[in-house]
Amino acid sequence: MAVAQALMSAQSLAQYLHQQIALSRAMEVDALEVSEDSVRLSAPLAPNVNHRATVFGGSASALAILAAWSLLHVRLRGLFPQVSIVIQRQSTSYNRPIQGAFSARAALAHPDDWPRFVRLLARRGKARISVTSTLEYAGEQVGQFSGDFVAFDQH
Amino acid sequence: MAVAQALMSAQSLAQYLHQQIALSRAMEVDALEVSEDSVRLSAPLAPNVNHRATVFGGSASALAILAAWSLLHVRLRGLFPQVSIVIQRQSTSYNRPIQGAFSARAALAHPDDWPRFVRLLARRGKARISVTSTLEYAGEQVGQFSGDFVAFDQH
Repeated sequence: MAVAQALMSAQSLAQYLHQQIALSRAMEVDALEVSEDSVRLSAPLAPNVNHRATVFGGSASALAILAAWSLLHVRLRGLFPQVSIVIQRQSTSYNRPIQGAFSARAALAHPDDWPRFVRLLARRGKARISVTSTLEYAGEQVGQFSGDFVAFDQH
Repeated sequence: MAVAQALMSAQSLAQYLHQQIALSRAMEVDALEVSEDSVRLSAPLAPNVNHRATVFGGSASALAILAAWSLLHVRLRGLFPQVSIVIQRQSTSYNRPIQGAFSARAALAHPDDWPRFVRLLARRGKARISVTSTLEYAGEQVGQFSGDFVAFDQH
């Protein structure tokens, strides 16, 4: 169940997001890190600023969703080239104001679920998995995201 | 505890959002309805589109947050001119793909909580309230949002 050969570079991921998801361009999302275990995306304050000169909660959730979605995308694309991943539900908590460029680091909520998720996706063409993202600003955790995603193998 | 005199026009609300919250401009958010009981915002597909030619989940949550925040803003601004409203947590469920222009209609989760919320805000300078938003597309409910907000009276 190795996925290493399927990973994208951070630069390719950022380009892909900008091409595919309009809001990621408007938010000026960048990809900082792509590994088998996590994806870390960042965005600057200016395009995401609110009335308090801090990051708008909708921008923070959107970055967390993008990081979580990207983790599934980079892990699955080598195994299921036609896979499509959609979000089913998410929750985000905002612990404190974010006053500058911020990031979201995504990881599987339960890494042990991965083999079963891939088996179900192969067998039934559809499977569900949970991903968490941690929002960070200036080296500190400033929020927490949890989302459930459904993958469809369109092959 | 009348708030009617404090209501903004839908046009003023849209302008205010565009000025204050950068992402609302990028999303091309418009205000359809502002009343004492609800605020309804809309956004077109193009600036919010994803890899499946449907609305990105982050855009949908952001519109729901904006509608909920706006409801509190229009109700409170006449009572507390210096009030500031921030989101503490939210959850969004996505029931089906959104294939075109969509809207979010916000209402208080528990309208009976309003008098106590206003009393606490006046007395302590801080109070918490829950707001729901319903995501709609082509006349159908396509998602549900629930958020907790904290208002600070900065006077």
